[in-house]
Amino acid sequence: MDKLSLDKHISRQFNSDLEGLKTDLLEMGGLVENQIADAIRCFEELDTDIAQRVIDNEDTIDELEVTIDEQCTLVLAKRHPAASDLRMVLAVAKAVRDLERMADEAQKVALMAIALAEDGAPARNYPELQNIGNGVLAMLRHALDAFARYDVEMALSVVKDDQAVDLEYKAALRELISQMTKNPSSISKVMNVLWAVRSLERIGDHARNLAEHLIYLVKGKDVRHVSLSEMEKQVHQ
Amino acid sequence: MDKLSLDKHISRQFNSDLEGLKTDLLEMGGLVENQIADAIRCFEELDTDIAQRVIDNEDTIDELEVTIDEQCTLVLAKRHPAASDLRMVLAVAKAVRDLERMADEAQKVALMAIALAEDGAPARNYPELQNIGNGVLAMLRHALDAFARYDVEMALSVVKDDQAVDLEYKAALRELISQMTKNPSSISKVMNVLWAVRSLERIGDHARNLAEHLIYLVKGKDVRHVSLSEMEKQVHQ
Repeated sequence: MDKLSLDKHISRQFNSDLEGLKTDLLEMGGLVENQIADAIRCFEELDTDIAQRVIDNEDTIDELEVTIDEQCTLVLAKRHPAASDLRMVLAVAKAVRDLERMADEAQKVALMAIALAEDGAPARNYPELQNIGNGVLAMLRHALDAFARYDVEMALSVVKDDQAVDLEYKAALRELISQMTKNPSSISKVMNVLWAVRSLERIGDHARNLAEHLIYLVKGKDVRHVSLSEMEKQVHQ
Repeated sequence: MDKLSLDKHISRQFNSDLEGLKTDLLEMGGLVENQIADAIRCFEELDTDIAQRVIDNEDTIDELEVTIDEQCTLVLAKRHPAASDLRMVLAVAKAVRDLERMADEAQKVALMAIALAEDGAPARNYPELQNIGNGVLAMLRHALDAFARYDVEMALSVVKDDQAVDLEYKAALRELISQMTKNPSSISKVMNVLWAVRSLERIGDHARNLAEHLIYLVKGKDVRHVSLSEMEKQVHQ
């Protein structure tokens, strides 16, 4: 093999390593999306079978985090990526950590559903949980789409949506605390709902982190800890 | 400069880059330790001045996270580290993220102290908060010491301590929920204590993560998501 075709071969292999990381990230993202959707559903229906499935699946997600992270380290060690290739590897390594944390919070929601069911709570709609749940699921979907298409505008929209979810979360907290005050005998039941709502809000924070990692990957700018307007300015520069 | 002394020079510069990362990490760790200690103290004394200082310092910690993370990326791009050098860079990058999250939780504790003070709560000892607070502060200190000395035994002890803190946390939750049930008019005040205790428990989780990053750095083994006994086995192999 002459030098040129060897270089081409190495470069093709390198590109396929990077594409592989992205594909793995998106696949893991899809699984985490299912976990969250199932966690919300098991809460609506107080379905302990679905809840148990969410809990059982957690190991798979943990393994994926470790495996993809190892792949990232391997690419760093073998290929010495630079510039946007390096940012790709680092963004994926950070993103899988956020995805794992999201799945962790989904598991907590499932555990709260089981606690409520064991406490003999009736299956009923929890509107607070529904709204925030749908909000953060959409955020995750959009964050993954942003990664798939390197779409910074979509990533910005996820950051905006996180602000809306935070407001809904605060309203939900007030509502739940008022329920406890009116009916103190319900406190421990309502606390389970409160922890579940809290976990969903954390999932929204992690979706925002995913969006920030994507902006870093595409724009080379670290936009953590900056305001939305500053972020927009940096992205549109 | 002949080839050999150039290599030596590069290698010395490289070592000093790596040592610099570690020093930066430990310095940031010291600041975060202070933030947590202050957050606990402002809660004890309901001292809103200390609480405000904790909140104001948060920007510095955020900047340190971004700066050290950038340094890690630079070392990866310029030096192509391999083996334990690569693990050092990756462990530091992960550890600063955990430190920033800890400071974030310390800020939440300070915000809860301000909310309580504004609510006209009397300054009093919160034994639940004290115990967990001291527990997680010790965990952070030991995790930083483990990093300073590459001491995997100390890192293992941090993981063990996290299990004790989790038990204390659960006991504190039960106690706080029982206070709410007995005295429903106190619910919103007790919720502030509950969120603070929750934040401290999260700080313990992040200290455990730090310990796991150190084990990865020294032993080359990813011990996230494995049981303590499995972790001990892997470390002592």
